Amino acid sequence: MKFFYAPHTCALATHIALEEAGATYETQRVDFSANEQRSAAYLSINPKGRVPSLVTDKGVLTETPAMLLYVAQLYREARLAPLDDPWALAQVQAFNSYLCSTVHVAHAHRMRGYRWADDPAAHEAMRAKVPQSVGECFDLIERTMFAGPWVFGDMYTISDPYLFTIAQWWEVDGVDPARFPKLADHRRRMVERPAVRKAIAVETG
Amino acid sequence: MKFFYAPHTCALATHIALEEAGATYETQRVDFSANEQRSAAYLSINPKGRVPSLVTDKGVLTETPAMLLYVAQLYREARLAPLDDPWALAQVQAFNSYLCSTVHVAHAHRMRGYRWADDPAAHEAMRAKVPQSVGECFDLIERTMFAGPWVFGDMYTISDPYLFTIAQWWEVDGVDPARFPKLADHRRRMVERPAVRKAIAVETG
Repeated sequence: MKFFYAPHTCALATHIALEEAGATYETQRVDFSANEQRSAAYLSINPKGRVPSLVTDKGVLTETPAMLLYVAQLYREARLAPLDDPWALAQVQAFNSYLCSTVHVAHAHRMRGYRWADDPAAHEAMRAKVPQSVGECFDLIERTMFAGPWVFGDMYTISDPYLFTIAQWWEVDGVDPARFPKLADHRRRMVERPAVRKAIAVETG
Repeated sequence: MKFFYAPHTCALATHIALEEAGATYETQRVDFSANEQRSAAYLSINPKGRVPSLVTDKGVLTETPAMLLYVAQLYREARLAPLDDPWALAQVQAFNSYLCSTVHVAHAHRMRGYRWADDPAAHEAMRAKVPQSVGECFDLIERTMFAGPWVFGDMYTISDPYLFTIAQWWEVDGVDPARFPKLADHRRRMVERPAVRKAIAVETG
């Protein structure tokens, strides 16, 4: 398998999951500074022009929640998701859906406003609201979703690297980590995991 | 099970899936015109203040991609997802993730701009771009994702009611269905399914 990523993106979540699973894979950095994600070569892999992408002998997989579930299914012995409990698995997928469709989207309005408006003044208005909108998402996670010590209690799942990845953006989004004691503690503990250190070292090395 | 919905929202996707599965459930309309989704009673069910929500004897489930997968797992005999093929299931989840995190989000900028900016001029700028941003999403689906006759070929899956639900919004989003012959044909065939007729009749009745 070949994993396409860019540093400081949501690709980190799947990268960590691959490491946690002990997967055999290569990595390939996509150079956002050169707009490589819009190059013909990359668009032939992922027509969306986004990262991450996972190229396998079966085809190409995209979208973080799907990639995380696939890694968990491919490496069942790593026990990264409650695969034999439909209700528990549904809760994992619900959490990951919230991250991709609401939390990540709130964050994206800081730098990617051009996706949703052409007016530079609108982009500025979007940037201004990010601390509030992202902060409200994490407040809801802290209050109503996070069991601790991991997202779903004692079982470490694919939701943990995904939460960690988006929590990496608190500071650039203008959100104060002190507002979320449980999530800030989770972030500190995640950094100590070898799989997390390895993935971050590769992406920022 | 009790299914909370509002008409003309993404709740329709799960509603159709419940019907396709032959599930036993009650429905409860959430009155958006009275802002019932922000009422204390509803927030106690779903703290996000959104629809849909599925109340079960195990707890509450939210987020369309998770609910669709749960319905498929709970009613395996309805064969609404390739549950025994991790790669095929990953593709279903990738498609549904794209719908929730990109297509639905593009659409939401027409009416829900207040989520991402406070300036009314920014809301207007967002509204103006919806025909383009939503149109580009469906163009990508038509060109690169849709196999036909169903999203994943001969197997009808949970991705079909989800695609159909968001395709219901083409006209209000200012997107011309004639741009997407395969998807427009899919929409026409979906309406003929008894499960789709039933769900729509309940929601708009």
